[in-house]
Amino acid sequence: MVMQSTFRLTPRRRGFHVVTREVLEQLPPLPQAGLLHLFIQHTSAAITVNEAADPDVLTDFESVFNKLVPENMPFLVHTLEGPDDMPAHIKAAMIGHSVTLPITAGRLALGTWQGIYLCEFRDRASGRGLVATVYH
Amino acid sequence: MVMQSTFRLTPRRRGFHVVTREVLEQLPPLPQAGLLHLFIQHTSAAITVNEAADPDVLTDFESVFNKLVPENMPFLVHTLEGPDDMPAHIKAAMIGHSVTLPITAGRLALGTWQGIYLCEFRDRASGRGLVATVYH
Amino acid sequence: MVMQSTFRLTPRRRGFHVVTREVLEQLPPLPQAGLLHLFIQHTSAAITVNEAADPDVLTDFESVFNKLVPENMPFLVHTLEGPDDMPAHIKAAMIGHSVTLPITAGRLALGTWQGIYLCEFRDRASGRGLVATVYH
Repeated sequence: MVMQSTFRLTPRRRGFHVVTREVLEQLPPLPQAGLLHLFIQHTSAAITVNEAADPDVLTDFESVFNKLVPENMPFLVHTLEGPDDMPAHIKAAMIGHSVTLPITAGRLALGTWQGIYLCEFRDRASGRGLVATVYH
Repeated sequence: MVMQSTFRLTPRRRGFHVVTREVLEQLPPLPQAGLLHLFIQHTSAAITVNEAADPDVLTDFESVFNKLVPENMPFLVHTLEGPDDMPAHIKAAMIGHSVTLPITAGRLALGTWQGIYLCEFRDRASGRGLVATVYH
Repeated sequence: MVMQSTFRLTPRRRGFHVVTREVLEQLPPLPQAGLLHLFIQHTSAAITVNEAADPDVLTDFESVFNKLVPENMPFLVHTLEGPDDMPAHIKAAMIGHSVTLPITAGRLALGTWQGIYLCEFRDRASGRGLVATVYH
């Protein structure tokens, strides 16, 4: 059985953000066992699961990905939308456009340190649209 | 309920390619709500979702991933299959072997700019085999 | 229909490891057609699918990811848990915390060369916990 809903996250500044609580508030009551699929309908932001306890981790994520995929690489040809745009597409492909999470006993079966990340790669972005699909 | 099919994409040259239409032509009629899982049965090509409007983005993807994972890194030991092979495995792991996409109102619920990418990392490859699973 | 189980992999040293057989031994009999979702409940290890025939590939994966995300980058701020910790989080985000695999004719529909990888990014780690969800 499939339940599906669409919602928009609050706009966030460029960087990595833990959004577990905001996502959960948008979902219907979860089944006893199943899976939650979250899909981001954008190509310059990403969604993943990672360490949600220490905000320093979020800062380091932003620094390392900016180092891996710097702006203004001289060979880029898709530059019309600004120096942050093409790196945003690359980072989005590296991290991913969706997560699938197990649901156990009516709750997300996340590990102790895990939370859902919104990775915002544009300097300026409006709230990102997500499609949530719960199946059980 | 699960529907499953296997098909082969047209061979493509090394690089990033938008294959949304070719994939859709291979699928049975989609349900009103559900998920589509696409799995690539190879370890030197990848599948993802990204910007499908400007072909320059595809060119830049190829350039940036070649810069991130260059050929002929001197410490590599798996070199028998050619200089493009081991980088292909790494790029495939960075981008991913499958996508899961929401189906809404009988269509893929892709964002405005999103399309399905085949990422071909070998210099020469035959058509890549995919397994499509639709569940609803 | 959803079947779910939780298990722990044998602890492994830092590096990339093929764990297909160990994972399969933990699963209930698979359905004729469906999907297997494996989720790792950790943020410094990852799970993916890649080349499982030549152990040299595993060695090169470790070398390349250490080069992409080196330890002791001077700008890192999350350093209290050791020099391997923050790189581990980044590598985990690049590779991913889960895989979804098609099941066909009662078996995983992996390609000829594909196997399931556990990617252990910490110098010392205990066995990693996974949640397996089979749906059909």
